[in-house]
Amino acid sequence: MQLQLTEGLHRQLRRAPDAVATVFGDRRQTWRQLADRVARLAAVLRSVGMTENDRVAMLALNADRYLEYMLGVWWGGGALNPANTRWSAAEVAFSLDDCDTRILLVDDHFASWCGELRSRSRSLRTIIYMGEGDIAPEGTLHAGRLMMDAPPQPDLGRGGENLAGVFYTGGTTGFPKGVMLSHNALLGNAICNLLEVNYADDEVILAVSPIFHQAGMCILIRALVRGCRTVYVETFDPPMVLNAIARERATFTLLVPTMLQRLIDHAEFETYDSSSLRKIVYGGSPINERLLGQLLKALPNVDFYQGYGMTETGGPCTILPAACHRSSNAVEHARLRSAGRPAWGLDMRVTDNDGAEVPVGTVGEIVARGIGVMQGYWNREKETRDAFRGGWLRSGDMGYFDGEGYLFIVDRLKDMIVSGGENVYSAEVENALSRHPAIAGCAVIGIPSERWGEQVHAIVVLRQGMQATAAELRDHCREYIAGYKCPVSFEFREALPLSGAGKLLKHELRAPYWESRNRKVG
Amino acid sequence: MQLQLTEGLHRQLRRAPDAVATVFGDRRQTWRQLADRVARLAAVLRSVGMTENDRVAMLALNADRYLEYMLGVWWGGGALNPANTRWSAAEVAFSLDDCDTRILLVDDHFASWCGELRSRSRSLRTIIYMGEGDIAPEGTLHAGRLMMDAPPQPDLGRGGENLAGVFYTGGTTGFPKGVMLSHNALLGNAICNLLEVNYADDEVILAVSPIFHQAGMCILIRALVRGCRTVYVETFDPPMVLNAIARERATFTLLVPTMLQRLIDHAEFETYDSSSLRKIVYGGSPINERLLGQLLKALPNVDFYQGYGMTETGGPCTILPAACHRSSNAVEHARLRSAGRPAWGLDMRVTDNDGAEVPVGTVGEIVARGIGVMQGYWNREKETRDAFRGGWLRSGDMGYFDGEGYLFIVDRLKDMIVSGGENVYSAEVENALSRHPAIAGCAVIGIPSERWGEQVHAIVVLRQGMQATAAELRDHCREYIAGYKCPVSFEFREALPLSGAGKLLKHELRAPYWESRNRKVG
Repeated sequence: MQLQLTEGLHRQLRRAPDAVATVFGDRRQTWRQLADRVARLAAVLRSVGMTENDRVAMLALNADRYLEYMLGVWWGGGALNPANTRWSAAEVAFSLDDCDTRILLVDDHFASWCGELRSRSRSLRTIIYMGEGDIAPEGTLHAGRLMMDAPPQPDLGRGGENLAGVFYTGGTTGFPKGVMLSHNALLGNAICNLLEVNYADDEVILAVSPIFHQAGMCILIRALVRGCRTVYVETFDPPMVLNAIARERATFTLLVPTMLQRLIDHAEFETYDSSSLRKIVYGGSPINERLLGQLLKALPNVDFYQGYGMTETGGPCTILPAACHRSSNAVEHARLRSAGRPAWGLDMRVTDNDGAEVPVGTVGEIVARGIGVMQGYWNREKETRDAFRGGWLRSGDMGYFDGEGYLFIVDRLKDMIVSGGENVYSAEVENALSRHPAIAGCAVIGIPSERWGEQVHAIVVLRQGMQATAAELRDHCREYIAGYKCPVSFEFREALPLSGAGKLLKHELRAPYWESRNRKVG
Repeated sequence: MQLQLTEGLHRQLRRAPDAVATVFGDRRQTWRQLADRVARLAAVLRSVGMTENDRVAMLALNADRYLEYMLGVWWGGGALNPANTRWSAAEVAFSLDDCDTRILLVDDHFASWCGELRSRSRSLRTIIYMGEGDIAPEGTLHAGRLMMDAPPQPDLGRGGENLAGVFYTGGTTGFPKGVMLSHNALLGNAICNLLEVNYADDEVILAVSPIFHQAGMCILIRALVRGCRTVYVETFDPPMVLNAIARERATFTLLVPTMLQRLIDHAEFETYDSSSLRKIVYGGSPINERLLGQLLKALPNVDFYQGYGMTETGGPCTILPAACHRSSNAVEHARLRSAGRPAWGLDMRVTDNDGAEVPVGTVGEIVARGIGVMQGYWNREKETRDAFRGGWLRSGDMGYFDGEGYLFIVDRLKDMIVSGGENVYSAEVENALSRHPAIAGCAVIGIPSERWGEQVHAIVVLRQGMQATAAELRDHCREYIAGYKCPVSFEFREALPLSGAGKLLKHELRAPYWESRNRKVG
């Protein structure tokens, strides 16, 4: 079966060419205008050397231009490598070099990074400026000007198992890994997810979660499948989001609980008209009851859904249906602590240490196979081998199923911390900390945070006779990793708890913080 | 991408094993009971010689047993060959022999056919009785008894591009052809169609259209995807249908307009509770305005959809949305004469004689490619080659697209007549007629019928000095073809209109009957 990510655009050209496809600030583009820009951008990318399968990066905040980048790359036969806007220049350069990305698109917010990225990256050859200005920064090409001269390129029709993108995700090894996803994976996941959370034809999709993230990109792919209008907000800012909802009558959005909390806590929440909203999907962590209660009251007509997924599954793999959120039935209500049920096409199991399925109610490692699952990690054979067992993708998360197929996540093998919707891998933070000369040993865990869901917490053992303050260690980390990954709180100890085999017992470190809670993250 | 038709059953075993899956009369089966019977039936089929890819036929009216047959064959690695219950024994035997089907399942209604089928078919080896009686008819095996002794067979997990079934469809050559459809085709079509006509989790699906037909089977496959309960009515009979709706609170069904007319015309329609109905899909022909008006009034809470498809596309390829049916907007209302818009995943074009796409509004041949399209005709290389051009399946239908992607069908190249929802190929009827010694020439066309949509009409030229009455010719046809294919009306002429090249000008024969109508069939 051959799915093609540009198909939705072709379809809209036949159905509603003059309907508004994208809205960004005051700019409204029809499907016909979008397709014209996409075909021209594809021509520009080909002219600077993009060939089939080539990775093309974009470093930009959310905008209509991001959708053009996605479609333009696919139209011209290439593959995406969306850069994480929250990373440092060193981290972005790593993600470019790791999969040999030679072309980078930047918006106005990141135009000033060009020099540093050029000097740090070995693979980067061409930087294309996709900003709003008339003049391209030095050393970059002006996309708009090139597109005016470029004859539209016919769609090269790549699809199926061809590579659609390489998506970088933090890793247990301390370095991000590039998750390879095909057209079938991204589009198959989108179609199957629509069976659970369908978009109406007239849905207006608000893209506020970062598009470089799998979750943010998924809602755009689903919008393309259904031919829905998309509205872009550069970055999460409560008044900007509320204003966009009111002005464009947005009906659907995806947010993490932290953002939802900030939205309804905003002093002027009531002054904005949010009555157009019909559906909100949240992800990254479960929702606490207090917040849910506030949301149900503040947005009485909205259906809430939870999605749980990994970059490695091409999008959400479980969905918690709206009914569980508004139910007063105790059984359904208890499912709020679950991650929902597997989406169609994804076979999920809970397995023991040998990979055998365990009975309902028994905790084990969650594994998955089917539509959406990655091809592997770019250029990392060993990590790819380790990620699969007997054809099943190992999530690294521990959990159990109940008798009706709801998945409850109880712990993460991978030591991932989900803070404000961002994934932070403790190994990466520990690597950065360990570079400090005063550090003898350290462990990084997530602890509960009202605001962020989890916060990054470091337990540190100093070398004998040496000193370091929390502030010094935090500053030290900032040199190596993005700010959101740096520990928020520190704890100094004499030693770390180790198992008989010398393995760090993180569970013991986490236990006192989480013992009153049923699950850690979701 | 590997879709597997048994996946929905596995999914329900994890989600709701003890929910009711099927209802047939007073018999209610849970998903767990259904899966047990399916696994045992698969074991029985393997024990009588079914191996991977083997065709297994069933000749039966609608019942829960039909779903067991479908799933049991797939579970055990085989492929379906559903026999047309409206065909003569000779026609059924042809469809068995053509694809070398050795195993046939029969219900009580067709148990008496076993002897004749055995004597007519070369390939048939084993007949399995799936009826309700305790004793199997002579020469057949008793399914229920064998299943009691058979240890459940694990699912062999066939899917993807493996053959899921061979579906016989009448043909222009005068003999039915076996359409080969894979798991990906049947299940991909089902998933994509659900994007247009979604089933809720609690939908109750009434299977009243014959399941051996593509359309009737499709709704069962979609029900499996969503885990919906299915309710079976043996055959179309208004009181039985109305009673099943009322008793089981059915929410969804698929009918042809002729059936819908008979349903609401039934004297006791008002005495049955049909308030549970939410959605009705009709197919086979467009709906006339008078009938639609009656339906909208009689079933005010029902959303109506039209589906247009071919066996060769694995299910519906266009869907006319509910909104067009209740709209008072003239533009939307005019779309009632269209077949709707292509379903996701199916690329449809209108082409000229050379296969080039024609502009919007221009009539040409409708072609399709993408999800659901057949692998080819069983063992018919030439017909398969002729069915495709440049990778596109030729529908044989003429039509045009409007500027918003609605497909209007204006005529059928294949000379197919759609009478009461059944496809009648004129070539097949002409073949039968021509065997009569008094016939010098004949042409069979569809003409308008209030009751059947179209009725089979024969224009006949008799040999000089010979005589035959309409009744004689009708009786003659009945010896060779099913009753519903036999001409209802006859017209005797001196000669048939031929083109300069000697080609029969059917269009001229049809014109006087259809000139006041905008389109012939849909």
